[in-house]
Amino acid sequence: MQQLADFAGFSDEEGALTRLYLSPAHREAVAWLRDRMTEAGMSVRLDPAATLIGRYEGTRPGLPAVLIGSHIDTVRNAGRYDGNFGVLAGVQAVAELNRRGERLPFAIEVLAFGDEEGVRFPVTLTGSRAIAGTVTPGAFDVADRDGVRHGDALRAFGGDPDRVGEAAKRPEDVLAYLELHIEQGPVLESEGLPVGVVTAINGARRFRITVGGMAGHAGTVPMEMRRDALTAAAEMILAIERRALAEPDLVATVGTIEALPGAVNVIPGRARFTIDLRAPQDSQRDKAAEDIRAALDGIAAYRRVTLAVEPIHAAPAAQCDPTLMDAFAAAIERAGIRPFRLPSGAGHDAMALATLCPVAMLFVRCKGGVSHNPAESITVDDAAVALDVLLDMLRTLKP
Amino acid sequence: MQQLADFAGFSDEEGALTRLYLSPAHREAVAWLRDRMTEAGMSVRLDPAATLIGRYEGTRPGLPAVLIGSHIDTVRNAGRYDGNFGVLAGVQAVAELNRRGERLPFAIEVLAFGDEEGVRFPVTLTGSRAIAGTVTPGAFDVADRDGVRHGDALRAFGGDPDRVGEAAKRPEDVLAYLELHIEQGPVLESEGLPVGVVTAINGARRFRITVGGMAGHAGTVPMEMRRDALTAAAEMILAIERRALAEPDLVATVGTIEALPGAVNVIPGRARFTIDLRAPQDSQRDKAAEDIRAALDGIAAYRRVTLAVEPIHAAPAAQCDPTLMDAFAAAIERAGIRPFRLPSGAGHDAMALATLCPVAMLFVRCKGGVSHNPAESITVDDAAVALDVLLDMLRTLKP
Repeated sequence: MQQLADFAGFSDEEGALTRLYLSPAHREAVAWLRDRMTEAGMSVRLDPAATLIGRYEGTRPGLPAVLIGSHIDTVRNAGRYDGNFGVLAGVQAVAELNRRGERLPFAIEVLAFGDEEGVRFPVTLTGSRAIAGTVTPGAFDVADRDGVRHGDALRAFGGDPDRVGEAAKRPEDVLAYLELHIEQGPVLESEGLPVGVVTAINGARRFRITVGGMAGHAGTVPMEMRRDALTAAAEMILAIERRALAEPDLVATVGTIEALPGAVNVIPGRARFTIDLRAPQDSQRDKAAEDIRAALDGIAAYRRVTLAVEPIHAAPAAQCDPTLMDAFAAAIERAGIRPFRLPSGAGHDAMALATLCPVAMLFVRCKGGVSHNPAESITVDDAAVALDVLLDMLRTLKP
Repeated sequence: MQQLADFAGFSDEEGALTRLYLSPAHREAVAWLRDRMTEAGMSVRLDPAATLIGRYEGTRPGLPAVLIGSHIDTVRNAGRYDGNFGVLAGVQAVAELNRRGERLPFAIEVLAFGDEEGVRFPVTLTGSRAIAGTVTPGAFDVADRDGVRHGDALRAFGGDPDRVGEAAKRPEDVLAYLELHIEQGPVLESEGLPVGVVTAINGARRFRITVGGMAGHAGTVPMEMRRDALTAAAEMILAIERRALAEPDLVATVGTIEALPGAVNVIPGRARFTIDLRAPQDSQRDKAAEDIRAALDGIAAYRRVTLAVEPIHAAPAAQCDPTLMDAFAAAIERAGIRPFRLPSGAGHDAMALATLCPVAMLFVRCKGGVSHNPAESITVDDAAVALDVLLDMLRTLKP
């Protein structure tokens, strides 16, 4: 926890934690982390995609590795646990093995990815995709809001956009990818549990909805003659909520809404809102999207408004590996804690790694489900439980 | 109709009709109108509140007057009929009497008010309130967005804020106030009628509603643990609509809405919207406001969100005079048209006059219910019907 507090000092902003990808604070964080990794007995290198990798050999050099990773970039005005906790927990686990002179039948590599939040450039998961060999073509041609190209910033940082292909791991060199992360939700807290085993990282689909009715004077158009775009949108929002409530693990959110022209005394002629839809199974999510579309069509028809549905984002779900989940669950049980499984509603680097190797995640309870906020908080006891579970679980893994 | 087209040329904006109160275009419009009134046999003066008044004496000079009025200011990018039609119809009616040498047993005064739309200054109905003797104290101390004081602008125009009290009519000098106006709604069109008799100018109440829930990550907070301010607001919007649909002549509009923080992947922690509620009877409107408040409280309680209801506007309804309504209805029937009665959802100068004398309004069908828009349109035939009905009705009035 002291390390997490120290680490939170590397910020691009005075008095708040903001550590953008390839920024000066990112550089300082990498330098500090390099020293901690070295002290923990690891050989350390920065890969061409700016991922800091510390390697702790197994019973003999050159064995396939279990990867333990997360990200060290943050949102603006962030909390100190999101991402950073998973990286420092990996370093701590290796430090503990090193202190005991303990070698496992596989190597461990701790990975500190630089671009998970996707705040600086309009790309995300650059580091973890590089490891998986799935970086999007053109990802280095985009620019940040100051006009700095991604590729140039990476080169200045010590990476190399032209050699990112060399960062990709061969499947035979990798046994698994493990990630510890704060839950960023309220489920473990409400269950009264310090940790939980993630079953899948939910897939997401997002849509932009436009409802077209007929604007009019709020005083002169009788209710039954109206084609009010906002009341139609309100009915749609409730239909979306109802559909998501109908089955577990499915979530749907309308986070933005706008009524046009937007005057107190004008009937809205147009309404726009967004839908964010997530589920651990893509089939479940896609079925819900279909049902929602049908419900919206029905509401639009009976209210005589037009409906436009524009898909703006789609990411498939990533399933966690059953063997690794069981190994986490067994370690949790040995710690005297009820093993509990839950999906991850938020995206993580593990999504990118899932195309390369079996992945698993351990969630740590966070206060009030709050994240992406300075109020983000976990307890010392929960952090210790998570670290113990990780170490115990690692010792049970077979190569 | 040719006069209305000519009159629409007096604009503060090239290529669009924008005639703000006390602007150069207002001045030009007054000068032009003064000539038309003089030609129609009226004596003309500008009162201290910048209302142009043309007087056509009755069978002998000095008789009490029937007032015929409306406003000649417009919204920005306006249509040419709103307000202007009522003033020019009054001038035309007098011109017709004058052409025939016809004198009625009362005087007629045609009033062209300058401030009905309330666009330039944060006040409205200055001219009609001056006639009724009800100008709000401080109304001349407010400034427009360029910092020009209302009182200074009025003085520069030829009015006098210090003598506005002298503009007030004595009740014994006024028999009635009549106003012809486009409907600004779709009812007459849907009834297939050129004109209709207004029963009341609806009273309005407006509220600003704030719903407070709990913001959260769109992926990580299960549906059943959410306190989503926007889904609560959506349910409230439908409850408001349902209540207004439950009885005739009541209308309720949610014209603005905002979800905060307003991101596609964040559960709204706060939602704000407005309610505009109107009815021909204040008691009906107030009962509806009470019922809506109770419904909103119920929704807030069961959804575990906070609710703040802030009244931002209240104007009482103005009832039209039964005798005058009957006189209009009889004239309509004599024209071979089904007499139809409807409330006015929009505000008019007649509201202000209702405190001085009996008032009545005749609505003229407008295309698609469109107003406050260059597409505002009425037919030549409908305008002729309205003018005939007005003249016929005037001839039946007893002093």
